[in-house]
Amino acid sequence: MTDTVLDTPAIEGFASELVAQIRAQDTHGAWDRKSDSELLEPFIVDKEKRRAIPIIGDPDPDTLWRLELYYGALCLAIERRCGTMVSPMMKMSHEGFGRMVMMAGRLIVYTKSLRDVHRFGFDSIEKLNVEADKVISAAIGMIEKFPEVVNY
Amino acid sequence: MTDTVLDTPAIEGFASELVAQIRAQDTHGAWDRKSDSELLEPFIVDKEKRRAIPIIGDPDPDTLWRLELYYGALCLAIERRCGTMVSPMMKMSHEGFGRMVMMAGRLIVYTKSLRDVHRFGFDSIEKLNVEADKVISAAIGMIEKFPEVVNY
Repeated sequence: MTDTVLDTPAIEGFASELVAQIRAQDTHGAWDRKSDSELLEPFIVDKEKRRAIPIIGDPDPDTLWRLELYYGALCLAIERRCGTMVSPMMKMSHEGFGRMVMMAGRLIVYTKSLRDVHRFGFDSIEKLNVEADKVISAAIGMIEKFPEVVNY
Repeated sequence: MTDTVLDTPAIEGFASELVAQIRAQDTHGAWDRKSDSELLEPFIVDKEKRRAIPIIGDPDPDTLWRLELYYGALCLAIERRCGTMVSPMMKMSHEGFGRMVMMAGRLIVYTKSLRDVHRFGFDSIEKLNVEADKVISAAIGMIEKFPEVVNY
């Protein structure tokens, strides 16, 4: 998909799966000329950038969209690794607070309280991969521990 | 709470727990003079009333509020009966479609696809009680079946 663009360094691991999900949203090909790094750029929020984002009011729709994409990509990554279908459910209550659950059958394979969602992002692509791998491992651990709840 | 109002017939079962939840929202005492039946009235949507409600566009906020109240009251009813804390999570996607899950620890004790939420309601108070009791029984059944997931 990115053969028209030279991307240095190559995006690996979960980040590349996230890129695939971002590109899957791009039904009109508007981002064809964008590199993987450019597409991931809004997900990378280092300490300085983070401090500059005000946490007043509701998070902007783009941030919520990125959050949904991230958790959607996590669900797909889990499914790809262990074959179990996982679906996300996000509920924002107010001003950047909310809850995310990832579900397989009757099992909650991952749950997270969301806060300061305005500042959603990762220090670097490496950090994104590390964080995502933690979530994926934890979720697969739950699926392996309680298969009868998954298949209920 | 309702001693200023004569209520015929008395509201029993889950419906009375729902009334308690409605009254708990009434921090300014605006509904003190309303009978239990009057408070439940918007939850009662018989076939004729149902047909008259258009299912175009997003459900109105009052309907969503009643839906949240109903599932919140169900969670409390389950907790009251078996001691396990249950929390609801509702996600409306578009035009009256959505999903409701009720969770205890890592267990989904109840899940329901929502559709035509605009028309949310029950034929009668008796039907409301019958429906609620079904949900409560199913949820308690799950909790009893998978305690290790509830307490994970």
